[in-house]
Amino acid sequence: MAFDITIADLGDLVRGAALLGTGGGGDPAIGHTLVAEALRDAGTITVIDPDELSDDDFVIPTALMGAPSVLVERLPRGSEPVDALRALERHTGRTATATMPIESGGINSTIPLFVAAQLGIPVVDADGMGRAFPELQMETFAVYGVNGSPLAIADEHGHTAIVNTVANNKKMEDWARALTIKMGGVGYIAEYGMDGAEVRRTAIPRTLSLALRLGRTIREAREHHRDPVEALSELLPETLYHRGEVIFSGKIVDVERTTVEGFTRGKARIAGFGDEPECTVDFQNEYLVARIGDETRVLVPDLITILHLETGEPITAETLRYGQRVRVFAISTPEMMRTPAALETFGPAAFGLTEDFVPFERLARTGVR
Amino acid sequence: MAFDITIADLGDLVRGAALLGTGGGGDPAIGHTLVAEALRDAGTITVIDPDELSDDDFVIPTALMGAPSVLVERLPRGSEPVDALRALERHTGRTATATMPIESGGINSTIPLFVAAQLGIPVVDADGMGRAFPELQMETFAVYGVNGSPLAIADEHGHTAIVNTVANNKKMEDWARALTIKMGGVGYIAEYGMDGAEVRRTAIPRTLSLALRLGRTIREAREHHRDPVEALSELLPETLYHRGEVIFSGKIVDVERTTVEGFTRGKARIAGFGDEPECTVDFQNEYLVARIGDETRVLVPDLITILHLETGEPITAETLRYGQRVRVFAISTPEMMRTPAALETFGPAAFGLTEDFVPFERLARTGVR
Repeated sequence: MAFDITIADLGDLVRGAALLGTGGGGDPAIGHTLVAEALRDAGTITVIDPDELSDDDFVIPTALMGAPSVLVERLPRGSEPVDALRALERHTGRTATATMPIESGGINSTIPLFVAAQLGIPVVDADGMGRAFPELQMETFAVYGVNGSPLAIADEHGHTAIVNTVANNKKMEDWARALTIKMGGVGYIAEYGMDGAEVRRTAIPRTLSLALRLGRTIREAREHHRDPVEALSELLPETLYHRGEVIFSGKIVDVERTTVEGFTRGKARIAGFGDEPECTVDFQNEYLVARIGDETRVLVPDLITILHLETGEPITAETLRYGQRVRVFAISTPEMMRTPAALETFGPAAFGLTEDFVPFERLARTGVR
Repeated sequence: MAFDITIADLGDLVRGAALLGTGGGGDPAIGHTLVAEALRDAGTITVIDPDELSDDDFVIPTALMGAPSVLVERLPRGSEPVDALRALERHTGRTATATMPIESGGINSTIPLFVAAQLGIPVVDADGMGRAFPELQMETFAVYGVNGSPLAIADEHGHTAIVNTVANNKKMEDWARALTIKMGGVGYIAEYGMDGAEVRRTAIPRTLSLALRLGRTIREAREHHRDPVEALSELLPETLYHRGEVIFSGKIVDVERTTVEGFTRGKARIAGFGDEPECTVDFQNEYLVARIGDETRVLVPDLITILHLETGEPITAETLRYGQRVRVFAISTPEMMRTPAALETFGPAAFGLTEDFVPFERLARTGVR
């Protein structure tokens, strides 16, 4: 069902998007600022359900590519993602009737809202990751047969490039990544253009409305002096993400973090409040694997989130700090992200992990050493 | 005047092109191989004079970008530069009526011949450097107001990208360079698309026929037991390159060479046969500055060539070796490459040299310390 987003919704939306961003996806405060400015001019933004798309619709997803941390010092001029979408329209000779996120995250859930506000087109309530991932080929769109190419990328000077690697979405990622580095670390992209039927077949549906519900659930629980994480656990079984569970509570005792080829890689160690073994969480932009002692407890593409112990506010990998008191909260990924084709694209092996994927709700019972 | 190139012409053509390549532009033997194969199928290639172009003609120059040394192990599949030209045609909606070199050099004088043979279109007898330079913004096309963008680049898998940095030709170079690195060191490009009037206004005319004459002059002098370099000196005053002169003869006693960001940089030292001071030649792909003792004698964009002492065969910077007996032969660059706008784009300062440009025919008399 279509609904409108107003400034009053933004706080909840970016909080929920940051939760789904599973440590990555950028600073939700920046996403908030971007869309708030666009909404001041536009009033509202319309979000439509994938089921409301006709087969004649042409949806062009839009996103930021690169290091979201660059944005802290350099907010977009305003037209960059629109420039990318326009460049793709001119190149393909087709006009976008809607835009859509490629992933859920503090910034990339908001870029399409920003585009929609400027162009007066709707945003589709869906995306291609149902969470955040670091690379452009890691899309359910790609898993289920939509090519990312042609991709358009724009910088803050209105300069653009088109990448067309046909069905090779990994090469599209590589070439576009090289361009973002030349652009100073960040570019704005339009890619995976597709019709309404392809959206319904390949996208994770209703992730914008889910982000809004998740963010609202955390806030309202706090307002009613309830435990936000308990409220989340009650909500999730009503969604495609059918289970959410706290796997560890404790205090962050160490964070290793390095930036390699534009990615933030590292590991956080969390000590429990008792004498249980420590929990470690490895990340590459996003949280990839959570272990307790030497037992693997959650594996990508299941969602690992780290939440402030009391407030339930999601903490991104870039803002993890020694001494934070946190809960590690795992969420089942939707079933269409656990198929063999999906796991080949963004399962543990795609990140260099040696474990085979096991759904966390089974790991939680048995553990894997 | 239009003329046809046949296999019998190729040896002379690539020898002359390597001379104009001024140390860069790649191995002429590879250029020879490429075009010989294309000519076996096509029979002849037609070269037309810039004055024969109508204003309705649309000329798309084609070239190799990257490290020509990669080609030694990986000859093009055949369709790469054609793929680039076709991608630019599709993107612009305009069809090329001819192609043209962007520079003179052992390989880039031949890529357009290769394209022309496959497509049955003519090659324009002109180029945008009148020699070789290492970067794409260093074109008389750019100096005199033609944009390089949109540029198309293709790899050996038929994958392509379009770069559109509007009037910023240096940024076009940077982005395309980043893509060639992702392509394994070499890409094939189509850029600086322009009409017939723009070719006549901005290109260095008749450099393909000049390469053919220069190469033939060297060969015929050898066959007639004349000094090839003397024969070149007699020919050049009939051309836009109005003067050629040996500035040093000797033996190579040292070559420093490093590869930095895809460029071959270095310095050659040449000891004279008497007790005169040594000659040094600095290069970045191409020879940039020749000094005798501490006197600067030739500066980019004037052409510095290093020729085998007896045969007059041009030696590229990549094939300079200790012990070679050589002559350093300087050639005046055409006047349209010595204007203030031209010198800003590819004069000494563009290569980090501190000397102001002085035409070599004046330096030869006075020297600069």
